[in-house]
Order: sequence, then structure tokens, then C-alpha cells
Amino acid sequence: MATPKRATTRTRRAVTRRKGRGASASAPLVYPFGATHSVGDATMRELLGGKGANLAEMARIGVSVPPGFTIATEACRYAMSHDGALPRALRPEMAEALTGLEREMDRGFGDPERPLLLSVRSGARVSMPGMMDTVLNLGLNPKTVEGLVRESGDARFAWDCYRRFLQMFGDVVLGIKTDRRGVDPFEAEIEALKTGRGVESDLELTAEDLAELAQRFRYLIRRRLRTPVPDDPREQLDRAIGAVFRSWNNPRAATYRRLHAIPHDWGTAVNVQVMVFGNLGDDCATGVAFTRDPSTGAKGLYGEFLLNAQGEDVVAGIRTPQQITLEASRQDARRRGVPERTRARQSPSLEETMPRCHRELDRVARRLERHFRDMQDIEFTIERGRLWLLQTRTGKRTVPAAVKVAVDMASERVIDRRAAVLRVEPNDLTQLLHPQLDRSAPLDRLAEGLPASPGAVSGEIVFSAEAAAAAAEEGRKTILVRIETSADDIDGMHAAQGILTARGGMTSHAAVVARGMGTCCITGCAALRISYDRAEVEIGDRTLRAGDWITLDGATGEVFAGNVPTVSRELGREFGVFMRWADGFRKLGVRANADAPEDAALARHFGAEGIGLCRTEHMFFDPDRIQVVRQMILARDADARARALSRLLPMQKGDFLGLLRTMEGKPVTIRLLDPPLHEFLPHDEKEISSVASDLGVSRAEIRRARDNLVEANPMLGFRRARLGVVYPEIYEMQVRAIVDATCELLSEGTRAAPEIMVPLIAFESELVLLRALVQRVVREAAARRNMRLRIPIGTMIELPRAALTADEIAQKADFFSFGTNDLTQTTLGLSRDDAGKFLPRYVERGLTPADPFAVLDEAGVGALVRLGVERGRSVRPRLKIGICGEHGGEPSSIDFAHRAGLDYVSCSPFRVPIARLAAAHAAIREERSAREADG
Amino acid sequence: MATPKRATTRTRRAVTRRKGRGASASAPLVYPFGATHSVGDATMRELLGGKGANLAEMARIGVSVPPGFTIATEACRYAMSHDGALPRALRPEMAEALTGLEREMDRGFGDPERPLLLSVRSGARVSMPGMMDTVLNLGLNPKTVEGLVRESGDARFAWDCYRRFLQMFGDVVLGIKTDRRGVDPFEAEIEALKTGRGVESDLELTAEDLAELAQRFRYLIRRRLRTPVPDDPREQLDRAIGAVFRSWNNPRAATYRRLHAIPHDWGTAVNVQVMVFGNLGDDCATGVAFTRDPSTGAKGLYGEFLLNAQGEDVVAGIRTPQQITLEASRQDARRRGVPERTRARQSPSLEETMPRCHRELDRVARRLERHFRDMQDIEFTIERGRLWLLQTRTGKRTVPAAVKVAVDMASERVIDRRAAVLRVEPNDLTQLLHPQLDRSAPLDRLAEGLPASPGAVSGEIVFSAEAAAAAAEEGRKTILVRIETSADDIDGMHAAQGILTARGGMTSHAAVVARGMGTCCITGCAALRISYDRAEVEIGDRTLRAGDWITLDGATGEVFAGNVPTVSRELGREFGVFMRWADGFRKLGVRANADAPEDAALARHFGAEGIGLCRTEHMFFDPDRIQVVRQMILARDADARARALSRLLPMQKGDFLGLLRTMEGKPVTIRLLDPPLHEFLPHDEKEISSVASDLGVSRAEIRRARDNLVEANPMLGFRRARLGVVYPEIYEMQVRAIVDATCELLSEGTRAAPEIMVPLIAFESELVLLRALVQRVVREAAARRNMRLRIPIGTMIELPRAALTADEIAQKADFFSFGTNDLTQTTLGLSRDDAGKFLPRYVERGLTPADPFAVLDEAGVGALVRLGVERGRSVRPRLKIGICGEHGGEPSSIDFAHRAGLDYVSCSPFRVPIARLAAAHAAIREERSAREADG
Repeated sequence: MATPKRATTRTRRAVTRRKGRGASASAPLVYPFGATHSVGDATMRELLGGKGANLAEMARIGVSVPPGFTIATEACRYAMSHDGALPRALRPEMAEALTGLEREMDRGFGDPERPLLLSVRSGARVSMPGMMDTVLNLGLNPKTVEGLVRESGDARFAWDCYRRFLQMFGDVVLGIKTDRRGVDPFEAEIEALKTGRGVESDLELTAEDLAELAQRFRYLIRRRLRTPVPDDPREQLDRAIGAVFRSWNNPRAATYRRLHAIPHDWGTAVNVQVMVFGNLGDDCATGVAFTRDPSTGAKGLYGEFLLNAQGEDVVAGIRTPQQITLEASRQDARRRGVPERTRARQSPSLEETMPRCHRELDRVARRLERHFRDMQDIEFTIERGRLWLLQTRTGKRTVPAAVKVAVDMASERVIDRRAAVLRVEPNDLTQLLHPQLDRSAPLDRLAEGLPASPGAVSGEIVFSAEAAAAAAEEGRKTILVRIETSADDIDGMHAAQGILTARGGMTSHAAVVARGMGTCCITGCAALRISYDRAEVEIGDRTLRAGDWITLDGATGEVFAGNVPTVSRELGREFGVFMRWADGFRKLGVRANADAPEDAALARHFGAEGIGLCRTEHMFFDPDRIQVVRQMILARDADARARALSRLLPMQKGDFLGLLRTMEGKPVTIRLLDPPLHEFLPHDEKEISSVASDLGVSRAEIRRARDNLVEANPMLGFRRARLGVVYPEIYEMQVRAIVDATCELLSEGTRAAPEIMVPLIAFESELVLLRALVQRVVREAAARRNMRLRIPIGTMIELPRAALTADEIAQKADFFSFGTNDLTQTTLGLSRDDAGKFLPRYVERGLTPADPFAVLDEAGVGALVRLGVERGRSVRPRLKIGICGEHGGEPSSIDFAHRAGLDYVSCSPFRVPIARLAAAHAAIREERSAREADG
Repeated sequence: MATPKRATTRTRRAVTRRKGRGASASAPLVYPFGATHSVGDATMRELLGGKGANLAEMARIGVSVPPGFTIATEACRYAMSHDGALPRALRPEMAEALTGLEREMDRGFGDPERPLLLSVRSGARVSMPGMMDTVLNLGLNPKTVEGLVRESGDARFAWDCYRRFLQMFGDVVLGIKTDRRGVDPFEAEIEALKTGRGVESDLELTAEDLAELAQRFRYLIRRRLRTPVPDDPREQLDRAIGAVFRSWNNPRAATYRRLHAIPHDWGTAVNVQVMVFGNLGDDCATGVAFTRDPSTGAKGLYGEFLLNAQGEDVVAGIRTPQQITLEASRQDARRRGVPERTRARQSPSLEETMPRCHRELDRVARRLERHFRDMQDIEFTIERGRLWLLQTRTGKRTVPAAVKVAVDMASERVIDRRAAVLRVEPNDLTQLLHPQLDRSAPLDRLAEGLPASPGAVSGEIVFSAEAAAAAAEEGRKTILVRIETSADDIDGMHAAQGILTARGGMTSHAAVVARGMGTCCITGCAALRISYDRAEVEIGDRTLRAGDWITLDGATGEVFAGNVPTVSRELGREFGVFMRWADGFRKLGVRANADAPEDAALARHFGAEGIGLCRTEHMFFDPDRIQVVRQMILARDADARARALSRLLPMQKGDFLGLLRTMEGKPVTIRLLDPPLHEFLPHDEKEISSVASDLGVSRAEIRRARDNLVEANPMLGFRRARLGVVYPEIYEMQVRAIVDATCELLSEGTRAAPEIMVPLIAFESELVLLRALVQRVVREAAARRNMRLRIPIGTMIELPRAALTADEIAQKADFFSFGTNDLTQTTLGLSRDDAGKFLPRYVERGLTPADPFAVLDEAGVGALVRLGVERGRSVRPRLKIGICGEHGGEPSSIDFAHRAGLDYVSCSPFRVPIARLAAAHAAIREERSAREADG
């Protein structure tokens, strides 16, 4: 998720100035907006939050929004640092804004005749769906509700508003929550009343029933809290604002921020807005729409609405909503197998039901998209035929959609290509690159829901967020199956491989959150009958229990029994265009780490420009070969070692043949043998016995060899170049294999470009020695075939000393490759294998900015990389320098690699497109900040 | 051993110029010297070698040296790079020089009437005793020997000269060596002849016998080599020069150079000199003298001579020589229990025998000492009453002598105090600081010899250099017992703790080499009757065998049976003066690493200015406490851990009380707990059982705790500051103990200055956290006693990241201490525990300049230290910075610490004086090079 970049310098200056003067200074804390008078605009996200800034902007450009005002984030920050107390200046400013609203609406807050009703919503700088809370219909009390009855002429509507107010206020402000058994006390009252009245649906409850319900809610609150619900509208408002501020620090919000790297001190704004009603009758509706399809990116309004409902009903997923466009409605019906006539009767589109409103919505949507230069996610309410926009924000979308939207918008000239390339976060490509279901496998289809978030995942059924989290800790894969999800489920949704809900639409909580997380999700799967108590789910005549495996296809909405295998996905046309654009901007080369031809082929498919790291030891661990490797290690003399090596030679040659052939002349950097030899020896007694009898040596001999080779600190031990120095014959064999393979390919007319990399150099002298060895073997082996080869010989820089003496080392190296995994271990004195005892605590407590094995530690390891580059190039200005190591596929580390002037990064094949995109981002960002610095 | 520093810029320029033009250019290769015409001088060591330069210098200032010429080292370097061929320019230059000599001496080279006889000696830039070879009496052949008979009037002398020539030429030039059974074929001929003649001593052989011997030698050579010995003097000379050049590369010379870090490419010069004879009769003598006593430094001629002998006889130790001064002769006789009358008859001093020559020698010696501004080691020959100086060089001396000579010469104003301080190599002080025999222990005195090199050592008897070397590899201590030693024994002499010889004087091979090595040595111990065959030695009626322990006191010459305990030595008055002078020059502070009051007291005794590193974990390993430590580690909860820690608190307080009290207000840097916790847990099953029953926990629990704590790479694991972060209560207890101890001392009026050091900081955040913890505990614990303390809180810089981010870390640190042991491990990726598998090979093959754990790796680790200093001081200009780690006591690392601008070094108590002297050297050297750079 992107942190917003849109605050301009002007706003930032304004905010800084305000900070300096403190919250009690005269800068406003309240920013009115509406048709007549708007103070803020879209650039003021820091101060007004995303929702508030966009409401102000919409008002400014003449889009119809219910008038209201935004309380700045500064007030929240003040409250956080003053035990929840609100700044003194807030009350008079708010009073003034309220008076303005009363005047504009010709209503009075608390006026029993023409009551002004307000909504109170949170709105942080970035959208945090479902995290913060909302209270509607503020201003109702036993007196004003009677005024509403009279005014609306609809007693049932008025009492429904009041009971909704009580329910939300009780939950959000007063803290009366669903209990541990999953029972919501308010819903329980509703159920009890329905049972008492003998009705099944809420809609069957009469105005009197709802008035009775309101009484029961008031009693419930007084009983629980030993104090009545406040009837004074101003007290209601104050307490709602306080609750919104407090909710910034609730655990769900904190979890969300932690997961999305949002600073805790930003605080939230509060938006207070005049109520408009989508539930005043059949000329009313409420809905949510995207300006493009958030799942595919297809252009055109895409969304859902409910007739005669309040907005929360759509998002909560309690009723299954109708489609906005006729086309979407028909498609949906086809998918569900609903005949057209039934559809048109039971679930017509907004386009059919309210064609004028639909046209207006479509016009407004297109305008907002052009204005904000991005796909928008909007909330609207239609009150008695009039369209009101309640919110607009950048729409979350699937990654394929993001790619398509970016390419389309650039083609439509709404944005330029740079902006288009920046629109997709590199890491999000993971979703595209990873596999989809293998449709040729036997499929046991159970049901179908809405394709809320794509992906192809399998896992054990779990029925609670806690169970998903617990299973994840044990490394088990799960599918979280819920009737619907709520913000309380956020941790579990993160822990699960996929999410399946029985209720809710494409914009339900589950769908929105899952798309944000990139987690596969299917919503509205009506066939599910879930029993949390029995921990089972019935689907048709089948019953699945917790622990049973199911598979979701988030792209189609299908649910299958069992663990369905997956295959890689076809990447669409837009993806190709998008990546070509990205490649046009980036300066860094992107290679892949690959040891086998299959990996190399995948890497090329994903656009790798070479192999940056071929680890030869993986080849040694092959079960067919490890015995020969062991013979080599256990050899009693140089002769026996030579015999074993001569058996390994053709095998290694075969490895390199395959790899070089696949890469067709693209560079392949082959690292000579690396791990400590004891890693190849068997460790437990059973293995030792079997190896001993296989090799015809005594067990004692193997044990002795192993004990001899075992080390106190293998990470700092006898490995890599040090092996090459002490046992040159191993490296000789490997170089010979490389040369033989290369010569063979060249003679048959295939291009081949191996590069030989010596690992773990601490002293220039080691490289002098090993370079001479490699050169000699290359010369000799090529001469045997009457050829001459020029194979670049380089080294890994993976020890601090190598970086510090890079000027000496560069004299003997044709290229450098930073091994940032090892460099991190030595620079930080942190063994990857052992850091588990304390590093997670460090990350949690903020003692390190991030896990340094995931994100390159720029201050420490990065400083050495910069030194290495500078010193290396001081003697060899055109020295080719790369990074191989897991940081080579991590976007912020790639950004660093770009800034440090490296030539390429190398990463796992699946991360190649991510690296290409991250490299493009780095280049564009640098260009931009250079331009800003110039301007 | 110091590499010579005396070549002036002028000479260096000259040599560079010559190099540039190559050996075939017109710059001379031959440098004549003598009373009439000298070309070279003392500054030209690089070109003429030490011996040649000093011969030229002596000739220049009018000291009587036999005339000759020196062939420059350039010729040797040419020969080394041209398969032994001599440069073309050499022959005509040599011919010219020869002609000059012939004219000066009125003799002819090869002239049968007045034959000119020459000596050929090697002479490298620095003295390499016994390494290179000498040929005397060149120019003799069957014809010229007759001339010598006539001219000298002494046929026996002439034939003795000839047989000596043949013997040396055969050995040195023609390579006829002692065989594997230790039989020298020439000596065997002598023995055979003596047996045939029925005589016992060489002296009983007549002129005819010696002529016969010469014939037998000629036959021996022809038989062995199938070619006769060359009779042409010019061929003799050419081949002798070639042999000297070749001998530069013989294994003994190579070993010596490796041990003394002498570059292999220096090459040697050759000195060709007219023969003078100390064996022409009783008015002839030859001897070796020091201008001061090399053992004590006492002023005055000190040396030995043989009447009627050639120089090699003294050095070889075959006859026991007489003393030069009467006083020394009397002392020696007293030591041997010889009555004065016997002494005066059997072994009178030169002072008595040749009083005029003695006076002249004394005068020349004093002149040379003043001229060369250092104690000289001179060789002389008296031919028929005339004194000739054959060589002068800086005299090797024992360390006490070096200290005394330096102080005395500065007092005599021959040198200044800076020069005096530079005269003693810091590491050599080890000899002074280490123990001497405990004279109060029961002593079983076996014999007494000459106190050739001081020290008090014990070891198993070995009879060969090989046995000494083999025992050293197994870590066994040995005393090498030999009849006499030769250059072949050099490796074994190095490997042995001490050397004991039956023959030879204070200037014999064994004595000279042992003093150079700082190895304890007793020579001329006549009571020994050694049988190599039976591997035993008889001393009086006792027989000791190989493997029996003996003890040597090199200061007195006494030999004791068994392993005699040692005690520390009294340091003399001069030592105090010398160290005060050194302290006056040095800029670096010197502290000691000490954990216990005894160590602290020793450190103060040796002049430590504080404790730079008090390791608290050693205190935890104390057997009384380890169980409590284990209870702490195995604690199931914070409460149980707190209980164990509260038991440790008074113990730790006691530790700190003792240490702070001993240091009386000098700073004491206490490092908080450091090692991984698993180090405290028992590891084998027996121990586990005993600990389990002691602590009342199950064995499984201990095993679980251990397995839980055990690490793949403990060096990069959960230790040091990381422990403090995760288990703050351990550090809290330690800080409380420090504060309690400090408060207690302050209240009783004792000064106490603890400093608290947090180890292994990788991230500034760790230090922020732990500094806050320490400050809080200091405040609280002091407040409990109504006191306020200001205890500096600093950190170790022992990870590359800490050095790289020292600017951030310095903001929270009152001082830095570089932990160069760990910094070396991480910077080089080299575990000290594991490096044994390859590091010795690296050092041997020159892949690393030295063992980086012994000598600080300046290019890598040093670069980080410099970065850390620079970045740390960039935010805290007065930041106090030290080194604790074993490099803190190693002179070249101390030199680096000085140059890097550190404030102090900290080392083990025994190395404190070494560090003080090294720091003074560093300061003086820097001053000098600054002055040179200015000039």
C-alpha cells in the first residue's frame, strides 16, 4: 500500500507552521465544506485526512456532497497527548460550523420540529477500511425522533433511524460489543422482538415495533452502563468525536497500521456531515461504485447498491446488493444461473431502476476520475431521487486491474507513462506471477461465490481468526470461512491463505480488506451454511469440518474440495506493455539467481537479462552425486580426491551445458563451490552407517572427518574461497567443467557467456591466487579443444574487509557481486540462523527499522556497499557491479542499489518482474527528486 | 629484530637511480676499501650490506682494516634473477680492484713467491649470524702454499692455512657437507690421521701431517665430485662469490629471514678482503669483543680471544677462549672455582698477554662506539702484534643490557633520550617482565655454564633440533641440549624454551643466536658429556635422558634438575628511568584488562593508568557462583530470575569493591555481561546430572534450556547487548552492584571511578535503550544511599555496523572502546575458533601479512577503526576512545592506535610496559616523520 505522496510543499509548510504554534494557537481546527462555503482541498490530507480532503475537494469543484465540516487530525494528536481531552479552541469553532450548517439546512441541532441530523465518521490520512468507526443519525432523541416522524411522514423510517443511532452509538461510542460467543446484544434484542412478533425479516417489523426496539436499546444501554444514553445532541456529538479519536488507538487499527507501515502518530480527522437518507422509501438508495472494475480494471462504472437502505447496509454485507449497470447485473445473473426475467424482477440494476440517477452517477464518476487522475471508489446515497456523493477515494484494485488501469489511463492521456509505472507497487506483482489452478486436474467443485480477490489457494478450513493465526504460527495453511468478516478478524485474514464468506458483495469488508492484502477471497457464497458451534459448514448435501482442505479460485469465485494443484498464469497484453514501459525507465539490469535450466527458463520468461548467481553447491547435493562428493571429501590423498573429482567433472559439465544453453549467450555468473565441506557429510548415525557401507569406509572414518570439519562458527569458518585456496583441485574441476561446456556449445554454434565468480574474498591475495588458478585452467582446458576463451573472473563482496579494500580487490576482479546476505551477517554480527532468538523482538520494539535480512540495512550494510562501489571504481571506473542475495528482489533494497550506482540486481526468477518494476520506480523517483532539487 | 633505518635519503635515492638503470649500467658493482682508498661508507647498507658498509666506514675514519672490496647486493639480485650468472660488468671492476689490492700489498694473486690471500665473506643488509658462509685463505694452491711456507717461515702454519682453505671451500663452495650421521668427511680425515699418527690434539699434528692432510682433502674432493679442486685463484674467487650468492637462498637463510621478517629480495653483498692471520704464532690472536657487556650492559670492553688461532675458531666454539679484560678473566675464574694462579697461567686475559694490543683495542672500541653511537660487536685479529679490525656491527644484547646501555649512552650524551627509548624493542621487554627462578624452592643444581642469554625456563631434554620442533608442535616444552649448535639447528632453537651447550663461549653460535631470539641459553657447560646415540647426557655421576625435565637459569648459567618454579623479577633502576623517559614521549594512555584485584595490582605495578576492560563474566564462572548463575538462566519466570539475581548481587558488589579499591580512583571500565548464556550451562551428561540434582530441576529441563540456547554461530548470536535488551534484569543487577560498591567506597573516603561499558552494539537504538536502563538504575541505586553519581556510560565498537554508524552511536556514548578481537572476526569473516583449519596456511603462504588476531589488520579492521574515530568525533569531538582486545598490547597495533588518534590502549597487565614503550615509539616515529616531511 502506497503512503500518499500528494501533499504539496505548500500544505506541508502550513502544517509545520501549525505544529510550531501548537494546537491551542489560532490556526483553525475545523474546516467547513459544502455547496456554499469550503475551506479545504484535496492537497490537505495530512490535516483533514483522506476522506475530509476529498469531501472538501468535491464540494469545491461543485459535486453534490452533504454539507459538513472536518475536524483536523491535529485535534486527534492533541487528544492522544492529553489523555483524550479535546483542545479548548475546538468547541467554539465547532459551534460556529454547526450554526453555519443549521443556517444552510434551515434546521436546528436538537430542534424537535426540524431536527438537524449528523453523521460522524473517522478519516485518516490514508484509507483504513473498516478500521475506524462511524455513527449515523446523531441528533436523534425521544423528542427529535417525533419531529422526524412528522417531517418525513414515515414513522417506521424515523424509528428505524433512531434505533440505528442507538445501536451504533452503543457499539462505537459506549463500547457495547458482540460478546465472546459471537452474540451482538442489539441484534439479540432484534431477534427476540422478531420472535415475539412472529416475523422473520427486519422489514416485517412495524414502526411501533421499531419504537419498542428503541426503548429496549435505551434500557439495554442503561442496564449495561448504569447510566442513560445521552439525549443532548451536543453531548452525543462530543462523545462521538472522542470515540473516533480513541478508536485510532484500538488494537485493530494498530494492527492495520503495523501491517501497512502507517505511523502511529498521524492521528485521524473526524468528518461531521449532514445526514442524507437512502432509506426514506423506494426513490431512495445507497451504494458503492468504482469508476472501473476493481477486479479486472475494465473501464466503466462498477458497483452495487441497495434500494431503501442506509450506506452501512451495503458495506456490512447483510443484504446482497444489486448491480449498478445493466451489463454487470446480467453477467452476475448468468454466473448465478438466474434467468433474465427473474433477474429483472428480483434484482434489477440501478441503470434500470433509476436511469436518471444512474446517468448522473456515471457523469460524476468520470469527472472525479479525471479530476483525481485515478480510478475512484465512491459512496453515494440517493435521497428521494437526489444523488449525493458521500465519499470518493482512490479505489483499491487487484494487481491485474492496477496494471490495466495504469496502461489504459496512460493511453487515455489522463496520466503519463511515468505515473502509470509508479501506479503499481512492485511487490504486488507477486500476485500476478504466482500460479493459478490447474484446470486439467480433477476438480471437485463445491460452490461458487463472488470473485472478490484473485488467487488460487488451498488450505484447511478454519472458522475463526484466532484459529487462522494459530495455524499460521505452526506453518499450516488455512482458508478462513466466515458468514461475514468484521474488523475484528483482521489478524486472522492476514494469517490465512484465503477467505471465503457466505454473505457480502464485492465491496463487503472481506472483499475490500482481502484485495488490499492481496489475499485470495470469495464473498457472497450463498450455498454455505456455516455453524460456528459445530465447527462445520454444509454445502448442498456435503458437510465439511474444520481441518478439511478446500481450494479457492479467487478469479472465478469457485470453491473446490481438497488441495487442487496449480499452474503458472498467462500474463495479459497490458502486463507486457506495462513492463516494457518500466524497462524503458530503469537503469539497473535485472538478472536471476538460478541453478538449474528450468529456473533459468523461468527467469528468461520473466525477463531476466542473465543469471547473476548460479550456486554450484546445490548441484553437489543432488542425491545421485552426493556420494561422489563424499568420496572426494573422505579421500585419504590427493589421488583419491582426484578420482572422485574426475567422476564429478562430467556431471558438472552437464549442469553448465544446460544452463548456458538455456541462456543463449546471456551472461551466466557461476559461483565456485561455497559451503563448508561438513555440510555434505551425513550427520545422524543411521545416515552415517548407510554412507559408510555405500562408500566402503568405516563409520569411525566418516565421524572423524565430520568432527574434523565441524566448526564453532561455520559462518566464519573454512568455506568458499578458503576451500579453493586449500583444495585447489575442487575449483580446478569446476572451472574445467565450465570451459568444457562452453567450448562444446560454441563449437555447435550456440552462444555461451559464462562468468566465473570467486566467493568470500577477505584478502586481495586470495583472489590473486585463485584468479591465476582459474586463468590457468581456462587456458589449458580451452587449448585442449584448440580454442581461446575470455571468461570474466569476478568476486563476491560479502565481507566488510572486501568492501573496505575494494580498491585492491578490484585490480584483480572483472566484476563485483555484493553478497548482501553474508555481508549483513558479518556487518551486523548477526547469524541468520540464530537471530530468531532476539531479532523479532527487535523489529517489534522498533530497535531495527526492519528485518535486515529482508530489507537491506542502508546505514550499515549500505554504507559498506557504497564504499565498495566507490573504492572499486576508483581503480576500475567501468567495473561491473551487482547484488546477488535476497535483497536483490526487494524493492526498497533495489531502490538503494539504483542510488548506489550498481549495474544490476539478481534475484529469484519469480521476483524478476518485481525487480524490473522496482528498478523503474527507483529511476523515476530519482529523476523526480533531481527535478525538484533543480526547481 | 629491527629492520635497519639508517640508510639516508641520499643513499636511497642513489640506489633507486641505480635500480632504474639496471645492473648492467655503469654504476659500480665493486666498492674498494682500505687505508689508501675507500669508496663506500656506513650509510650504504642497502648496497654494501652491513658488514661491507661498516668496513668502508672504518677504513674511512682511519681504523685499521685489512684492505679489500665489497661486491654490491645488486650483483646478487642480478644473479638470483639470471640463474646464478654474474653481471658482465662485475669481472672488469673486480679485476681492477684486485690489481689495486696487489699493488697496495705488494703481492700477487696466485703469485707463488708473495701470494695474495683473500677472505670471502657474505654480508647482507642486516646481520644474519651463522646464516651465510665464509671462505678463508683464497689464493692458496699447491704452488702458492710453498710460497707461504717460505714467506712465513712457518710450514705448519702454511699447510694449516691450506688445509683450512680446502676444508672451507669443499664445504661452502663445493657442497661437501656433514652427512646424516653427523659425520663431517673432512673432520673424519683429521681424526683418521690423528689416529694413524697416534696423537690426540690437532696441535700435535706436524707440518708434514698437515701437508698430508691437504693431499687427503684434495683427494676427498676429487673422489666426491669427480673433478679436482680448482687451483686457479681467480676461479676460486669466482666460485666462492657464486656460492655466497647461492647461499642467500639456502633453507637456513630463508628460515632466518622468515623468522625475522627480512625480505627475500634484498640479496647479500660479498666482502673480499686481504687475509690477516691470527695463527702465525704466539704474537698472534683473534677475538671477538663487545664494547659493553652484552648480558648486563655494563660499560667496558667485554670479549674473548684465542691465541694463535683463526677467527672462525672463536665463533665455532671449538676451543674455550680467554677473556679480554683482566677483571672479566678473574670473575670467570671465580665462577668456575679456578684459583688465581692457575687462571693467570692457563687462561690469562689479553690485557695481561698483549697489554699494548689490549690498550689499542680498547681505544678503537670506544672510538667505534662513539662513531656509530651504539654498542659495537667487533671482530679483530692480531697478526704479529698488529691489530686489525675485521668487522664491527651493532652488538646484540640482552634486554636488561639494552635498557642499561640505552640509559647509559643517553646519560653519556652519545645519543639523545628519543634515540635511547627507540633502542629497545617493546616486545623484548617480555623477557624482563617474565618470571625468574624461585630461589626459595628446593633446588637440585646439576652444573653451571656461561650465562649466554638470560631467562628462567624448564622443559624436557631433547638432543636434536628436529625433536625440539616436533615437541613444540605438540605443545611440549623442551630444552635443546647440544655439544654445540650450528646454523642447521636454527628451527629447533626457535622451538625450544632454552638451549644448553657443552662447548662454546659467550659469543658462540648458540649464544649469539639465542640472545637474538630472546631465548634462554647456557653455553660452555663443560660438565656435560652428551651422547647423541644413546640420547642421554652424563653430568657428574648422574645420567639424564631425553624427556627428563631440567631447568636453566640463563642469568647465572646454572642448570637444575626438574621443573623449578618461577617468581617475578625485580626491575632495575635503569628500567625505571627508561620507562619514565618513554612515558614522557608517549601520547597514548595505557590501561590494563583485569577482572580481579590481583590482576589490577599487577597492572598498577607495571604502570597501568586504569582498567580498560573488566570482564564481568569471568566472575560468573567462579565455581561458587555458577550454580546461582544457572538458577538464573533456568528460571521459569521473572520472579525466579529475580531471586537468583538477588543472590548474585552481593557477590558482584564484592568483585567491584575489590577492583575499585585497588585502583584508587583510576578509571575502571566495567563491561556488562557478555557471553551467550549457554556457555554457563553444563554440556556433558555427567555434568548435567550433577547440576540437575544440585539445582533440583530435571535433567530434561537443563537439556532443553541448553538446546534452546545453543546456536549455529554463537559468535553472531544472542549475546552481549542483546542479552541486556531481552533480559534487562541481568544488567540491572550488575549496574546496581557497581553503584553499591562505588557508594560504599566513596562513603569511606576512598576514591572510585567506575565506567560502564555496554558491549556489542549494532544499532544506536540498543544503546539508547540500555543507556536509559543504566542511567535509571544508577540514579535509583545512588538515591537509596542519598548520593548522586556521574558514571560515564560508553560502548564497545566491535561490529562493522557500529563503526560505520559511529556518528549515531556517539550521541549516546561517553566513550568508545574498540573490541578489535570481535571486530577482526566480523570484518574478516573469520572465527578465531575455526581459523586454525586454514589461517596458518594463509600466514605461511603470505596470503595475509600476519595473523590478524595477533597484529591488527590495518587495511580492513584499521579502516573501520579510523572510520569509527572520525565519525564518532564528528559529533563528539572530545569522545574518549580506546582499544581493548589483544591488539592493545601488540606494538605495531599500538603504533596504529597512536596514528588513528586513539586516547588509550588496554592490554593484559604483563604487557603494560610493552604498550607504554610501543606508544612512546609511535609518538617519536611520528614526530620524526613529521620533521622529515617538513624538511
